[in-house]
Amino acid sequence: MTANKTTAAKTNAGNFFEDFRIGQVFEHATPRTITVGDVALYHGLYGARFAVQSAEPFAQAIGYPRAPVDDLMVFHVVFGKSVPDISLNAIANLGYAECRFLAPVYPGDTLTAASEVVGLRENSNRKSGVVYVRTTGRKTGGEDVLQFVRWVMVRKREPAAPPPEPVIPQLVGRVDPAHLAQHLPRLDLSRYVYPLAGSPHRWGDYAVGERIDHAEAMTLEEAEHQIATRLYQNTARVHFNQHAQAQGPLKRRLVYGGIVLSLARALSFNGLANAFHIAAINGGRHVAPTFAGDTLYAWSEVLEAAEIELRQDIGALRTRLVAVKNRSSAEFPHKTPQGEDADGVVLDLDLWLILPR
Amino acid sequence: MTANKTTAAKTNAGNFFEDFRIGQVFEHATPRTITVGDVALYHGLYGARFAVQSAEPFAQAIGYPRAPVDDLMVFHVVFGKSVPDISLNAIANLGYAECRFLAPVYPGDTLTAASEVVGLRENSNRKSGVVYVRTTGRKTGGEDVLQFVRWVMVRKREPAAPPPEPVIPQLVGRVDPAHLAQHLPRLDLSRYVYPLAGSPHRWGDYAVGERIDHAEAMTLEEAEHQIATRLYQNTARVHFNQHAQAQGPLKRRLVYGGIVLSLARALSFNGLANAFHIAAINGGRHVAPTFAGDTLYAWSEVLEAAEIELRQDIGALRTRLVAVKNRSSAEFPHKTPQGEDADGVVLDLDLWLILPR
Amino acid sequence: MTANKTTAAKTNAGNFFEDFRIGQVFEHATPRTITVGDVALYHGLYGARFAVQSAEPFAQAIGYPRAPVDDLMVFHVVFGKSVPDISLNAIANLGYAECRFLAPVYPGDTLTAASEVVGLRENSNRKSGVVYVRTTGRKTGGEDVLQFVRWVMVRKREPAAPPPEPVIPQLVGRVDPAHLAQHLPRLDLSRYVYPLAGSPHRWGDYAVGERIDHAEAMTLEEAEHQIATRLYQNTARVHFNQHAQAQGPLKRRLVYGGIVLSLARALSFNGLANAFHIAAINGGRHVAPTFAGDTLYAWSEVLEAAEIELRQDIGALRTRLVAVKNRSSAEFPHKTPQGEDADGVVLDLDLWLILPR
Repeated sequence: MTANKTTAAKTNAGNFFEDFRIGQVFEHATPRTITVGDVALYHGLYGARFAVQSAEPFAQAIGYPRAPVDDLMVFHVVFGKSVPDISLNAIANLGYAECRFLAPVYPGDTLTAASEVVGLRENSNRKSGVVYVRTTGRKTGGEDVLQFVRWVMVRKREPAAPPPEPVIPQLVGRVDPAHLAQHLPRLDLSRYVYPLAGSPHRWGDYAVGERIDHAEAMTLEEAEHQIATRLYQNTARVHFNQHAQAQGPLKRRLVYGGIVLSLARALSFNGLANAFHIAAINGGRHVAPTFAGDTLYAWSEVLEAAEIELRQDIGALRTRLVAVKNRSSAEFPHKTPQGEDADGVVLDLDLWLILPR
Repeated sequence: MTANKTTAAKTNAGNFFEDFRIGQVFEHATPRTITVGDVALYHGLYGARFAVQSAEPFAQAIGYPRAPVDDLMVFHVVFGKSVPDISLNAIANLGYAECRFLAPVYPGDTLTAASEVVGLRENSNRKSGVVYVRTTGRKTGGEDVLQFVRWVMVRKREPAAPPPEPVIPQLVGRVDPAHLAQHLPRLDLSRYVYPLAGSPHRWGDYAVGERIDHAEAMTLEEAEHQIATRLYQNTARVHFNQHAQAQGPLKRRLVYGGIVLSLARALSFNGLANAFHIAAINGGRHVAPTFAGDTLYAWSEVLEAAEIELRQDIGALRTRLVAVKNRSSAEFPHKTPQGEDADGVVLDLDLWLILPR
Repeated sequence: MTANKTTAAKTNAGNFFEDFRIGQVFEHATPRTITVGDVALYHGLYGARFAVQSAEPFAQAIGYPRAPVDDLMVFHVVFGKSVPDISLNAIANLGYAECRFLAPVYPGDTLTAASEVVGLRENSNRKSGVVYVRTTGRKTGGEDVLQFVRWVMVRKREPAAPPPEPVIPQLVGRVDPAHLAQHLPRLDLSRYVYPLAGSPHRWGDYAVGERIDHAEAMTLEEAEHQIATRLYQNTARVHFNQHAQAQGPLKRRLVYGGIVLSLARALSFNGLANAFHIAAINGGRHVAPTFAGDTLYAWSEVLEAAEIELRQDIGALRTRLVAVKNRSSAEFPHKTPQGEDADGVVLDLDLWLILPR
């Protein structure tokens, strides 16, 4: 038998645009048990300092059974599982929306993921198309822990292949805050120790329009983003294969966007130390690529404050989290006077954060 | 007292060729308890995706008491312990053979190692000799978990020292498959979920002669191989000391060969996702050195398929696993028409893999 | 509201010299539960090989409830917590003294830290001053695990601010050995297996004046020191922000001094394998900065041997531990004939080590 034949038979070359169908469901491979080892690596890779995720007694005192793992680690692990089926042949990750965190994940929980194709649109060049998937993460026992929609531009195997009926899903730009974080334990605020958490500022202390410079910064190394991205079992070759990247337009390995998310979130501790939980990501855009050697800064703006139904203990803050590279965040770089993304902006995220009231 | 005297008294300078005797046994230092922390690092350093090692419920469903640690992590930890006694003054690791995995290792198990000298042969230049050792790894309770023979070229302290009677051990080039993997729990295949494992292909789906391009690749960084090699408490200075290496012929730190093994094994998931266990390494050669910055690809060839006595649940596949650097594995680079190792080949391994039937 | 106003309101810009008062106490943020994940990373980052910290059965056999975490990991975690309150605006860490380890820390323990200002002295240039703090680390239940004094040079916000009454604490240069390590379990030496520990040399085998070349060396990478320093939640920007450092005098990121401590301690295994516990640090100086790419060697000199009250099982050795960069430690580089620090010396530490008798 020929090499190509046998290779085709066993090697997963990923799906191409014409392989996707509306309603198609992928049960993604490799369930993953999250452990305190992953939590330690998460601290080492990003420097997270939120007390609820950092200390068992702090989490237990306020009502958690134990310290939950960082919300974005759950996001990365679930996202990573979807890569071999959805985006191995992706040209670009275009965006995500309607990301909701549905249950806390604890060390010992095992995560699995599935994705449903909810939109398809071929590009006018006939060479590629946009695939929209709704990805759901589940933990042992089947409880949903995370759901989000993302859309990616995927190559066609055969440009001549007929285009599908275009379907573009209706996505809300803002998750309704009323039903956020219903899965969180009821917090006993009398036992939430603000000095240990790192700040006295609660939900009510933030004003809409307020901007916060997170001041600190992190320079990213190749080994750091590779270790993190492998930890999530994300196999997208642009992150790992310098030999191939050197022959492409970027010349370098591209940092997985989730690394920028997690670094910006960790930096946001300085100014939002009590925002202990991300309840939802309304939308996110990776405005520009990040490479090893880049130094990331971050700032936040408070967009909205919302109460949560039946919860007197916590409130939601909608914030814009912006990460910039190789320039200070002190002047809050965001848009040019022409409304374009300002120089150095790499991430523009719209979040619902949960804080004690 | 003089510095040299006291240094000699306390510092381990390693053994030289004339220090070894046939039948000599070394109980190696530093027992090591393997934990979920090591497992997380193993994922982060190599991107392993085999479901049995990645998820407790998957392993338990098919009959394991819990998820075992990756076979090669056990190999690296046991190998690492032998370095201070056997190969601190090694010029080169020449090869290994008869490597058999004898029992699963779980987080919480503590590994120790011992080596017996089974062969000695002075080189004609009188400056060095080849030492053959049989190294055995044991876990808490004394059960053997791993055994292999390796041979290394070791410097002599005094070229004038008399040569030993040459003894060259008889090594089989192929471990008998009939007795492989007898230590594995009996698998309940009805509960082995192929989509979660990442491939539908079982033992019977592979044909002798079939070649599989594992397609993906990894570029290796200094920090990655150093962290991994330290994790195994391997102290060989060529991996860590740039100041000394810069003065030698290589000019660079040499990557521990076990890193290449583990990366090639992790890459082989794409094409061999159900090969959840390495039962034996018939032989292995590090054909060329690997350095930070190299990008590793891998491919496999099926050499033989064998049934295992008394086991209807699993079968053994003998495969050649080849790792190449800085060139694609799509054309299966291996030998030149003259029968020499092809350009870019760094590892040529002969394995017995276990798959569900 | 203006950006600056809101930023000032929420962002921690750190304390300046005139913000400190004698007797002021800081309860530092972010309690941290230490896990086997942190232990695995500690092994991977430094290559520690001391049997008591490496293997549960070894520790339990001699009387520990379980394997304790490395003493210096406890030091780094406690030190890291103090950074946002004490040294975010530090120009330099000038030294530490009276560091005593007061109780073993085990995986699962949660560490908190507090610091009291015990000294203040403005510099003659009126632009900065020296702040002395006594920092105490505690574990779950409130037991003290570590206490040390450190002094740092901190910027003034307003050079015009009036100087405080100078207070300089009296610090002993040598912790009294009689009361060291009283918290350690009584060791059953009949079960301390010297070959597994890596050396036959006990407390009584070391002579005052004896010098030991630890022979091995480690080249340090940016990713390694950043991962380690983040793991300890140390936020000092000089370690992480290449964009800012490139504009300063060093041009590079500065390696957190604790990394050099831990690497030198790990290297000291070769020659001091049975020095399983650091009981105290009498004093320490970071003689010169360390950067990624530097290769660290280490040597030790035995300064003093002391018995410990009521303990026949263990004895204390006072040693000087010297780390040098980019030159061999074989000739024990320390001081010039003029009494200055010798070329390449980066760390000069005065320790009390505990060994079996």
